[in-house]
Amino acid sequence: MSPKITTELLKQLRQVMKSPKYVQEPVQAYIVPSGDAHQSEYIAPCDCRRAFISGFDGSAGTAIITEQHAAMWTDGRYFLQAANQMDNNWTLMKMGLKDTPTQEDWLVSVLPEGSKVGVDPFIIPADQWKRMSKVLRSAGHDLVPIKENLIDTIWTDCPQRPCKPLITLDLNYTGVSWRDKIVALRSKMAERKVLWFVVTALDEVAWLFNLRGSDVEYNPVFFAYAVIGMNTIRLFIDGDRMMDPAVREHLQLDSTLEPEFKIQVMPYGSILTELQAVGASLSPKEKVWLSDKASYALTEAVPKAYQYLTPYTPICIAKAVKNVSETEGMRRAHVKDAVALCELFNWLEKEVPKGTVTEITAADKAEEFRSQQKDFVELSFATISSTGPNGAIIHYKPVPETNRTLSVNEIYLLDSGAQYKDGTTDVTRTMHFGTPSAYEKECFTYVLKGHIAVSAAIFPNGTKGHLLDSFARSALWDCGLDYLHGTGHGVGSFLNVHEGPCGISYKTFADEPLEAGMIVSDEPGYYEDGSFGIRIENVVLVIPAETKYNFKNRGSLTFEPLTLVPIQTKMIDVSLLTQKEVLIYFFSVCFSWVVSVFISAGKRKKKKKKERKASFCQV
Amino acid sequence: MSPKITTELLKQLRQVMKSPKYVQEPVQAYIVPSGDAHQSEYIAPCDCRRAFISGFDGSAGTAIITEQHAAMWTDGRYFLQAANQMDNNWTLMKMGLKDTPTQEDWLVSVLPEGSKVGVDPFIIPADQWKRMSKVLRSAGHDLVPIKENLIDTIWTDCPQRPCKPLITLDLNYTGVSWRDKIVALRSKMAERKVLWFVVTALDEVAWLFNLRGSDVEYNPVFFAYAVIGMNTIRLFIDGDRMMDPAVREHLQLDSTLEPEFKIQVMPYGSILTELQAVGASLSPKEKVWLSDKASYALTEAVPKAYQYLTPYTPICIAKAVKNVSETEGMRRAHVKDAVALCELFNWLEKEVPKGTVTEITAADKAEEFRSQQKDFVELSFATISSTGPNGAIIHYKPVPETNRTLSVNEIYLLDSGAQYKDGTTDVTRTMHFGTPSAYEKECFTYVLKGHIAVSAAIFPNGTKGHLLDSFARSALWDCGLDYLHGTGHGVGSFLNVHEGPCGISYKTFADEPLEAGMIVSDEPGYYEDGSFGIRIENVVLVIPAETKYNFKNRGSLTFEPLTLVPIQTKMIDVSLLTQKEVLIYFFSVCFSWVVSVFISAGKRKKKKKKERKASFCQV
Repeated sequence: MSPKITTELLKQLRQVMKSPKYVQEPVQAYIVPSGDAHQSEYIAPCDCRRAFISGFDGSAGTAIITEQHAAMWTDGRYFLQAANQMDNNWTLMKMGLKDTPTQEDWLVSVLPEGSKVGVDPFIIPADQWKRMSKVLRSAGHDLVPIKENLIDTIWTDCPQRPCKPLITLDLNYTGVSWRDKIVALRSKMAERKVLWFVVTALDEVAWLFNLRGSDVEYNPVFFAYAVIGMNTIRLFIDGDRMMDPAVREHLQLDSTLEPEFKIQVMPYGSILTELQAVGASLSPKEKVWLSDKASYALTEAVPKAYQYLTPYTPICIAKAVKNVSETEGMRRAHVKDAVALCELFNWLEKEVPKGTVTEITAADKAEEFRSQQKDFVELSFATISSTGPNGAIIHYKPVPETNRTLSVNEIYLLDSGAQYKDGTTDVTRTMHFGTPSAYEKECFTYVLKGHIAVSAAIFPNGTKGHLLDSFARSALWDCGLDYLHGTGHGVGSFLNVHEGPCGISYKTFADEPLEAGMIVSDEPGYYEDGSFGIRIENVVLVIPAETKYNFKNRGSLTFEPLTLVPIQTKMIDVSLLTQKEVLIYFFSVCFSWVVSVFISAGKRKKKKKKERKASFCQV
Repeated sequence: MSPKITTELLKQLRQVMKSPKYVQEPVQAYIVPSGDAHQSEYIAPCDCRRAFISGFDGSAGTAIITEQHAAMWTDGRYFLQAANQMDNNWTLMKMGLKDTPTQEDWLVSVLPEGSKVGVDPFIIPADQWKRMSKVLRSAGHDLVPIKENLIDTIWTDCPQRPCKPLITLDLNYTGVSWRDKIVALRSKMAERKVLWFVVTALDEVAWLFNLRGSDVEYNPVFFAYAVIGMNTIRLFIDGDRMMDPAVREHLQLDSTLEPEFKIQVMPYGSILTELQAVGASLSPKEKVWLSDKASYALTEAVPKAYQYLTPYTPICIAKAVKNVSETEGMRRAHVKDAVALCELFNWLEKEVPKGTVTEITAADKAEEFRSQQKDFVELSFATISSTGPNGAIIHYKPVPETNRTLSVNEIYLLDSGAQYKDGTTDVTRTMHFGTPSAYEKECFTYVLKGHIAVSAAIFPNGTKGHLLDSFARSALWDCGLDYLHGTGHGVGSFLNVHEGPCGISYKTFADEPLEAGMIVSDEPGYYEDGSFGIRIENVVLVIPAETKYNFKNRGSLTFEPLTLVPIQTKMIDVSLLTQKEVLIYFFSVCFSWVVSVFISAGKRKKKKKKERKASFCQV
């Protein structure tokens, strides 16, 4: 991997930073955040501005360019990658290390007195603007919104914003019509006495209207905003995709509807002026509800006195609690996903010993098997297919430069998932195709114990997921081992594989309480740098539990694994498991696996008996 | 308990709220917070202003009086007590319930337009002022500081501020001289580039100067502030206690000292003007370090640009990590405490069946046995001595109206502790003097399992205590039981029985990581309203652990119980314990107990053999 040469680009950027064509007054620094205008985790190529200017294309990082310096803040996952991808115009700011300054503090230390720091107000979230602006102002500088994105002005071959066709989802998939979702949203608005709600996150727009798209890789979303009033619905979306008869019918655009359900379709780019008009029309005590992570541009479009900001929107919370149609869909999707992975493992068992399978071909084969399943749409994230030392790189993605051949001597870790029209999957299995060492089995078994401890945990209704995180670590901790990532994230239903507001992490203190119907991942791990990585991940559904005393009628919760992919028994040191763990393991994992193999067998009669046998041996 | 009649008092208060003698402009509301000027948990009688105006004397509560209303915010521990103690001039605002408005929201809903809300700026912490002031301002009202405390103006028989003699602690107790503590503090100040540090918490002043007092019941502290510069030390303290030769010698007030260790003693009341003078003398970039919980008055004495506020001060953090002299002192104190409680339990075993022991006499007897121990100073908190249904009231304190007689038919819970010159204790034991029911034993055993799970937990260096909270609940959760309080708090060394910055709670997210030398309590419980309460509490010391892999040299931690008081075996359903739990119980608790009984036996030769036997039978 050779670094991107950025000397010329930085020169151009520094010119536009002073050009009256783009800035009212010259800016002495320009911030290029990671995200898009919707604060998405995954972004479209046209939004990869930070990667364009620096060469560093990891999922998290912020670039700041001053007249003298160019600096990149990123976290521990990406120190190596960023160092490799950036030329020596750039200084790497290693976040999380003690001596690394914050962006604000660094700006204060390098800027001449009374400087102006520019940023695209659509890309920076309002809460972050507030924090930065405060520090800069107290040091005598100014954070200023620059209307035109300065990277776009020098990015001559910038790809177009995607505008792909939409998928409509009927009640079989969604369980609730978009009209009923609007009704529920308006009742939440009435509760909080707000008149308007602005939908800014792409997955929230998709969920609300029961539509999906493919504008962003891995996330079935499309570029749009919505503004919901008590009597109006405005959808801001571009392209001729609103001409699609299926979409028109789904949204009842051509029907005679009660006015409060009539959707006004408006250009994507008109959101700001429309929202400003809404803001200008308000009387005292009338409020507009936005996420506090919405862009500064949209937040400021509403005068401060009328803003009602919350960390989680009512859509985010409603979306997280899956209804019966959604959980049934998720179950179907996980059966299909298990069938595909059983086929893959069977294939790997046969092919790996030949020395012909690499991390990349294994990942491709996994996609091939998944794509043969009904209603497969795409992968839900870039497959982490890693063997040996690559397994210890937590967010590894195989590329030709790092691609290793799978062998009978190394542990193989596969973290992968798919989008099916009925659900989203995300599963990690760690395997050995030869004979694992006693140490590898020991570590694997501690991880498995942690995985089972979370999966089998019983807790009172209203418990926040972060309170369960230590259960996943206890067995590792007892031996002086740990892993430096959270234990679980919320999972969407044919939506983003990472979604809020729930999760299981020692870091997430702003998570919302777990409720029956929420879906999270359970994925403890252990990583030995330069040697191997272990992770065991299921997607689990929060369900009511039966307990002897039921928390004085507060209600009991536990998890039901949706993932049905077998866990390789040869990696387990059974002597380290308790009797209870063995029982849980056999009932929840093995039994589910047998079910999935039989489903597979039933559906694919042409598969030979011999192959099924091989697949059985593998666990 | 009959409520306090407050009609006349409220009338007087409403008059002074409009009187030009006390307020520049009339205030339409006046806030009476719980605390004192040092944000202490326990306060002196002269600071019990909220209790004076309302009658409600629980440890937590905020009163707000407007021209029409008088409202009291308190939490679930005190709903019943507040309702009983207040007359119907008052509205009880039950915090934690969904429909209860915040103080700010309530004010906004009841105040006429453009109101002024008054508060004593010495009593309200700066962070709380900020929050309230923002909400009020955005609704068109103003939070205004009222220099003279309006309650004090109508409290004609207000007790005097205590000003009791000081105790000096030598190196045997403290391990570090006050001079060395000042040196360490100045090095922390230099690290953060601050020139001044303001000590506002009473236990921080006491710890820094190796002095103790008795101005506040249960907390060996004295009313004082300190302002530490890089070359100056100012101690703000009243009374003739600085005339005490022992104190003068301890502080070297009459010695020829390097100027940077010369203590300037100033009147307690002059802190504000002195701090204002410091603030006025600062040049740009010079900073004054304060806790963000310091009073608004002191925080505002320093211009905003010069303030350096942190949630925990360097003294708070240093104080939490006990040195060898302090831990040895704590060990000695806990041996003495165990001896006293063994004597008490022996006495109870004999007396309870006679029906002559009440909650109050049992508490008195516990104090009597403790007071016979060497270096006993006072109790460390009001003894919770509760039997039967009273045990379910988590912060119960027996008073004649509620006093129950101990019997062989009810569970007895004793949560008590003492201040010894060498350490602070806090221990809870739950006992039965007859035959506990199977259900009582079942609940007790789950609590014990949780207690052991925390006590035996192993975790990496740098772990925050709140991550261990769920370990204490897991066994209870499995059966659908829980308790609605945290699991542990920091404990001072001959200082406050509750201290920051560490703890074990599902609520405490701002806790600092646990380090070897910190001391916390481990006290899960279970409460059955109207029936019984169970709690098992030890004070435990954070110590390095030995683990197989030692977290890649990050270091392993665990706990060592300091408390040596036996746990009653008849309350345990042994069939519910794992083999590991039984081993841990026997080695850590029983063994310690045998040690303490033998020490007791050795020290009190006159005690009859018969009594020792009875004491043995009791566990």
